[in-house]
Parts: sequence; C-alpha cells; structure tokens
Amino acid sequence: MIRLFVPHDLAPGAGLDLDEGQSRYLAAVMRQAVGDEVAVFNGRDGEWRATVARVGKRAVSLTALSQTRPQHVGPDLDLIVALVKRARLETIVEKAAELGARRVRPVVTERTNADHTRVDRLQAIATEASEQTGRLDVPEVCEPVKLEKLLAAWEPGRSLLFCDEAGDAKPVLAAGLGEGAWAILIGPEGGFSPKERDHLRGLPYATPATLGPRILRADTAAISALTLWQAAAGDWR
Amino acid sequence: MIRLFVPHDLAPGAGLDLDEGQSRYLAAVMRQAVGDEVAVFNGRDGEWRATVARVGKRAVSLTALSQTRPQHVGPDLDLIVALVKRARLETIVEKAAELGARRVRPVVTERTNADHTRVDRLQAIATEASEQTGRLDVPEVCEPVKLEKLLAAWEPGRSLLFCDEAGDAKPVLAAGLGEGAWAILIGPEGGFSPKERDHLRGLPYATPATLGPRILRADTAAISALTLWQAAAGDWR
Repeated sequence: MIRLFVPHDLAPGAGLDLDEGQSRYLAAVMRQAVGDEVAVFNGRDGEWRATVARVGKRAVSLTALSQTRPQHVGPDLDLIVALVKRARLETIVEKAAELGARRVRPVVTERTNADHTRVDRLQAIATEASEQTGRLDVPEVCEPVKLEKLLAAWEPGRSLLFCDEAGDAKPVLAAGLGEGAWAILIGPEGGFSPKERDHLRGLPYATPATLGPRILRADTAAISALTLWQAAAGDWR
Repeated sequence: MIRLFVPHDLAPGAGLDLDEGQSRYLAAVMRQAVGDEVAVFNGRDGEWRATVARVGKRAVSLTALSQTRPQHVGPDLDLIVALVKRARLETIVEKAAELGARRVRPVVTERTNADHTRVDRLQAIATEASEQTGRLDVPEVCEPVKLEKLLAAWEPGRSLLFCDEAGDAKPVLAAGLGEGAWAILIGPEGGFSPKERDHLRGLPYATPATLGPRILRADTAAISALTLWQAAAGDWR
C-alpha cells in the first residue's frame, strides 16, 4: 500500500490536491489511476484511506474516504547529531525516522568538519522514510546550531543521553534510561573535544554512556543509541 | 593511526610485502614514506606496530616491530541475512564488522528478490570496516546458501534470534538472550513466507523477537538486532 504524508486536514470527502512531486510519483512512477486507493496521514488526524480522484502528469487529486488508524505519537525522543558528511547524515535522518525519533537537531561542534546542510533535502528524506516505516508523523529536521548554543537553551525536563567514546561511562543499558522527554547526542567522527566532554559531563540532565568496545561510525552510533533507547525506555518494550 | 589487516604471520622483524591494493593505499592515498608507522593485525597474533621499510607505487613493504595488543576475539555471533539489494547488503556487512559479528551468512529465502552477490567485494568491505573499527579479526563473509539448507545443517549448540515482524513475538530485550554461540536472522524486505515462519518458529534453538512497532528496512533491522544482542548478551555489557 502506498502511503503519503500530506499537509491537508483529513475528513470524509476532503479533496487533497497533491504537490508536483507527489503527483509525479503517483502518476508516473507508481502508475496510479482514478479509483486506486492509497493511505495518507498528516501528523494530526491519523491514517486515512483515500482514492485517486483525478490524474494529471503534474497534478493528482485524492479524495479522503475514512480513517483507518487513530493518530498516535511515539515517545518524545530527539536525536542531536554533529554534522557529518552528506551521505552519512542522510542515512542518520532516514534511520531516525524509522527508529521513531521526533526531531533531528544537527549541531556544529568543535571538531565538526562538515558545514553545509540542506535542511529541506533532509526533511524530504525524513518524510519518505516516515511514509515507508508506517509511522503517523514525520520527524522535524531543525536548522543546524552550535552545540553550545543548543545546550545553553536546553529545554527544562529533557534528559540527555551523551554517547561518550572515551572514558569510563557505563554501557547504555546500565546507564539508567527512564521515561519522559529525552535526547540522544552523537558526536562527530573525530569525537568531542576535551572541553566539550567536560562541559557535557557536568550537565545535571546528561547521562554519559558507551556504545561498546569498538569504534563506531557516526551513523552506526546513532542507530545503535536510538535502538537501545527505544528498547529500554521507549516503544519497543 | 592507519590500521591494516594482513595475511602474514607477525613477529619482531617480520617483513610484510603488501599486496597491490594496500600498497597503493599507503603510498598514493596516505602518502606514507619509509620510516612511517602503521598498525597491522592478522586475526591471530594481536595488533602490531610496523614501520614502512620500502615504498614503490605498487609494492610497499613493512617491517613488524612489536605487539601493542594481544589477540582478542569477540563473542561468537553470526549474522544470517537474506540477500537484499547491493547497496543495503554492503551497508549490512560494514555494520556487522563494526558491531562485532564473527560471520555474515547471506541466505536465499522464498521472497528474496536479489540473487547476485560478489562475496569477494563484501569480504573487502568487511576487512576495511574491521580496520577502521579497531577489532583484531575480520568477519568471514560466506557464500550465499538457501535458508532451508543452512537450517538443515545447523550447528549444534548455536542459538538463533529470529527477527519476526509479524505476530506476537516478545521484544528482543525480553526474549531471553544468553551467552554462548548465537546467530541473528534478518529476513528480506518482503518478510518471511508463512511456511518459513512456521518452520522457524518450530525450531528448538530459535527465539522469535520483534524490533518495535515500525517497519524497518533490512539494514536497520540488522544493525538494531546486532546492537541489542551485544548490549544484552555480548561485549557491550
């Protein structure tokens, strides 16, 4: 079943004029015809059956029929990730969507060596992955900010799992993950600077944890940390 | 520090004539000169310091100096993975090396829709990832076999974690992972057939488990399952 994320409000009989990208996808790639059914969701109204009402090469319209799943939002989990090379950052965003993160916050750290990010492209990747993974919302991809700026404006009540390659941190499953709002922080391929590590270790809301004895690439570390959080404290239990 | 996996026995003063690929890498890509130091390992003798003894464009020789880490082999964990499209299979092999799998066994299942595999290329990816992740061995990438053939010749005493998207399986962390020899089985993007699922569920050494409420791509499922096994029963504890 094709699933599409749409901006429209969903109600019985609502007309959904798709944008050019989704129209081309339905008409040219998936060869949908009038009367075919797809699933749609908008992050607010659950999942709906919809039928293809009109097909043009660049303008496909749907009609919403009925709700098939009520709206559900997963745990309040952010992924904060240092900017890494484009391909790996795109993988991280795709996997964050599959693994149920609510937001992806790219950050610039002292040892970050990538500084170009197309947030619109990353948001499109998050949307496509959300369509395929079955979730009813799409993670928000935020504009990159400096790590110190993000920490200075930290949201009260949100805990931080800080994946610390160096040092004496506990394994993630022994680190004491709990419920509530969390964020996972993944550093750049060169690691955090000593100054950054000291600062992070001193934050009252931060829990340092290690991801095993081998050196992991940033994309692997992000996927592993999201997995362990979901399994220990999130919706994989 | 550059790390290279070599076939030679390692002993003080041993001469290591590198193959053309590694020679080009050291000479042309990394611009190493006589006297520079690299780390080498062979899967048997631990990690050694070695010095560049001779540099030709296609023929670099090293001299082994002294052992820096004793040989260590991680848990006895196999990853059995249905053949998926080339790019995702290559990602899976890379990540299996990072996450400490000892073997990668590609299998053909009823719904497998990829049938071409270059095992030599996958083995090279496993080797490169092992060099970068710091481990002292390289996972073996086996020739693809049919799943039923692999199960018919199952190694006595090895437990199987069977990642089951459908049905009523427990979460991985509640499934009762233990020590000893294990294998993780990841199905194709289309899932296992009902016949395959019934067969797998009836195996006395198999434990079914789910990877959360969302649909995961095969590469994500492999990384998540390897992570959870290492965290709960392997060397991430």
